[in-house]
Amino acid sequence: MAVSSQTQAVHAYIDQHRDDYLNDLKTFLRIPSISTLPKHKKDMQRAAEFVQQQLTAARMENVRLIDMGGAPLVAGEWLHAAGKPTILIYGHYDVQPVDPEHLWESKPFEPTIRDGKIYARGATDDKGQVLAMIEGVKALMAAAGKLPVNVRFLIEGEEEYGGAGIEKYVTERAEEIPCDAVLIADTHMLGPGLPSIVYGTRGILFAEIVARGAAHDLHSGTYGGVAPNPLHALALIIAGLKGKDGAIKLPGLEKLAKPVTDEERGWWAQHPGSVEERLQREMGVGVFPGEQEFAPTERMAARATFEVHGFVGGFQDEGAKTVIPAEAKVKVSLRLVPDQTPDNVLPLLRKQVAKLTPPGVQTDVQLVHGGLGMVVDVHNPYIEAASAALSEEYNHPTYFLREGGSIPIAPLFMERLHAPIVFAGYGLADEGLHAPNEHFNLDNFYHGIHGTVRYLEHVATIKGGRHGK
Amino acid sequence: MAVSSQTQAVHAYIDQHRDDYLNDLKTFLRIPSISTLPKHKKDMQRAAEFVQQQLTAARMENVRLIDMGGAPLVAGEWLHAAGKPTILIYGHYDVQPVDPEHLWESKPFEPTIRDGKIYARGATDDKGQVLAMIEGVKALMAAAGKLPVNVRFLIEGEEEYGGAGIEKYVTERAEEIPCDAVLIADTHMLGPGLPSIVYGTRGILFAEIVARGAAHDLHSGTYGGVAPNPLHALALIIAGLKGKDGAIKLPGLEKLAKPVTDEERGWWAQHPGSVEERLQREMGVGVFPGEQEFAPTERMAARATFEVHGFVGGFQDEGAKTVIPAEAKVKVSLRLVPDQTPDNVLPLLRKQVAKLTPPGVQTDVQLVHGGLGMVVDVHNPYIEAASAALSEEYNHPTYFLREGGSIPIAPLFMERLHAPIVFAGYGLADEGLHAPNEHFNLDNFYHGIHGTVRYLEHVATIKGGRHGK
Repeated sequence: MAVSSQTQAVHAYIDQHRDDYLNDLKTFLRIPSISTLPKHKKDMQRAAEFVQQQLTAARMENVRLIDMGGAPLVAGEWLHAAGKPTILIYGHYDVQPVDPEHLWESKPFEPTIRDGKIYARGATDDKGQVLAMIEGVKALMAAAGKLPVNVRFLIEGEEEYGGAGIEKYVTERAEEIPCDAVLIADTHMLGPGLPSIVYGTRGILFAEIVARGAAHDLHSGTYGGVAPNPLHALALIIAGLKGKDGAIKLPGLEKLAKPVTDEERGWWAQHPGSVEERLQREMGVGVFPGEQEFAPTERMAARATFEVHGFVGGFQDEGAKTVIPAEAKVKVSLRLVPDQTPDNVLPLLRKQVAKLTPPGVQTDVQLVHGGLGMVVDVHNPYIEAASAALSEEYNHPTYFLREGGSIPIAPLFMERLHAPIVFAGYGLADEGLHAPNEHFNLDNFYHGIHGTVRYLEHVATIKGGRHGK
Repeated sequence: MAVSSQTQAVHAYIDQHRDDYLNDLKTFLRIPSISTLPKHKKDMQRAAEFVQQQLTAARMENVRLIDMGGAPLVAGEWLHAAGKPTILIYGHYDVQPVDPEHLWESKPFEPTIRDGKIYARGATDDKGQVLAMIEGVKALMAAAGKLPVNVRFLIEGEEEYGGAGIEKYVTERAEEIPCDAVLIADTHMLGPGLPSIVYGTRGILFAEIVARGAAHDLHSGTYGGVAPNPLHALALIIAGLKGKDGAIKLPGLEKLAKPVTDEERGWWAQHPGSVEERLQREMGVGVFPGEQEFAPTERMAARATFEVHGFVGGFQDEGAKTVIPAEAKVKVSLRLVPDQTPDNVLPLLRKQVAKLTPPGVQTDVQLVHGGLGMVVDVHNPYIEAASAALSEEYNHPTYFLREGGSIPIAPLFMERLHAPIVFAGYGLADEGLHAPNEHFNLDNFYHGIHGTVRYLEHVATIKGGRHGK
């Protein structure tokens, strides 16, 4: 695409205002908007109001907080590009908890720059990325006075907590946000300088398996040898659901999976560098348990997983207590690939847990939250526009990949808005999301601002947007 | 044995002083002497001083606190029964933690009497029992002015915390406490009104299995499918060490066990009532997992156990976090029967854990504490004297049983003092030891006072005590 002088002016404007963007980012990162912890309720409101101010500064109209019962949605739009497509920009302003806090090298809510990276909880997931998109739009409005296409923002605050509010909103009120495509920056690139579009995500089923034995805690000296031990029962169940070879043993799960195509394996084969070397560097371990008959790239994004995240019950303090607990539970999750869904997998899990439960123990599987995975058809103009924009911005061809994580709202957007999802993310996989020392490369923060501008410009060349005014 | 008028006078004296004994017991139970929690260090000292006062009131001589580095030992003696045997009386003044405290119907350190039982932490384990022995000696001294045999007391405050102090004392300074037998009231009777002598205890090996995977916590979305999960590894290990059938799968463990004799099985066959009915009543569950080819009585006391007590690591709060922890550990114990020992079992455990560890995870087995089990030959005059005393006191033949719990100091007493152990306990198995709502039947508290007097009188008829002056 020919670069107009107006476009050059916008990018020059962005380069001149880097300090402002960085200050905005620091302000955003200082708000401890941990959605899963009730004590941060006021911080959720503060973070929503920050986003609201940013959208107002970007000269969006009808900027509003939408109360769906939990942390508010923040929305706003600019719809004056007659005949042009409409892009819905999505992101989230909530963050994960910070534990174990003692492993952070700088405080999680005191953003600190080291070696070109900004360290703080939420830096890459997703405050840095969502702010880059807002700043891009803000720069266009400031430098050009208008946008090349119509834009809506819908930013949520419950992504790390199940996303009940936005799910309800999109399910019930999709007509308020008609659009031609949804732009999401909450995914990662293959590596530094390697622009990437994610065309698939995994779904998730997060559950607690509760086990009950005797009516009250028992002393292992007196009752050891005859007492049911719920913790032992849970260990048996976990070991029964996934073996030493890393294969999930859940009858019926495999045949629900849509097969991976040859075209996909072709894209993955083009990915640069050694996946094994990257994983060893990122994980600090050189052995990769799991289904050895599938390549790591496929196992990490296009195969189901079963993981245990924590056991609750018994004695967990320092020292020794020989208790046989009356009750215990274990937190587990399955990452799912289309067409596996929480609805069709939960009954399989319940049946197998019941089968694996040893005598004397009662078990129950309780769903904590679930979300769908998705695979989007990349052969559509909105994804082609993103591919072109990212290739321009990074001066490098764009890769296509599936991501292993879950963005449950994306499949719902597709279903309710009848619009393709464009995952154009600027994060890197090793930026510590959901872990201590989360950070975001500032280079990619600025690339994200420029890239958003480029994307909207490319979209302006698409004919036949359904939702332009 | 003919009952002398002097003996009758002592028992009458005891009956007249019940209120005093109950007040002493309440005072003792109000002291929160939890040895495993550092914040109760001052309470440990207070409890030791209470015991010291009681021994002084019982007119013991050379009453002293012995500092071995932790909670002090309390000792005292009366050695003026020339030519008579010497009995060492052992007990402990420390108690277990109280968690979960919300399940207590009355506060754990505010002794409360309901339905003839006194409720408080330590009531049955071991304050009520140790005080009964002291009160018996006190009553003899008060009513008769002397004891029929020589008596030493050695009361410790670290029984629930590994007992390092007394272990060091008995190992290094056994010559300070020569005796012909050791009397211990820290065991339970078969049931109300059923006098019982425990002739065997189990040993214990309490360990933590530590598992390490990646260098830091990982997000299951990004790395699920290739990341080693230490919690999953521990579940595999636990399931590998004990199966759904309840059998321990630790090669080499079984052949270390000294076989149970026909005489023992004969004693157990005389135990009254249905073990299954009792267990169902006490445990609130009617299924008894474990080695079905052995009777519950044997499994609970004369077979090794393997129990898991708690997993540490990952996410244990409310809600969901899809973390794959870098490190996790699990607390486990084995109850051991002679001649299984921590020394000969730990290498077996280490070897098997290494074998069960899946790829990508490093494991390490760390001993937290260990103690020996024991079986004492009941065909000796000091146990026969106890059997006779208890049968008289309860007007019922005395049963012989093994207990499933561990009293690690007992085998050390046997080894260093060359004296038989006499476990003549007054507790009941369902009195909530190590659990909420611990209590002690006051009837058995008074029986314990009378029973101690009767025991010393029976011992006085034994010829050939080595350590009388």
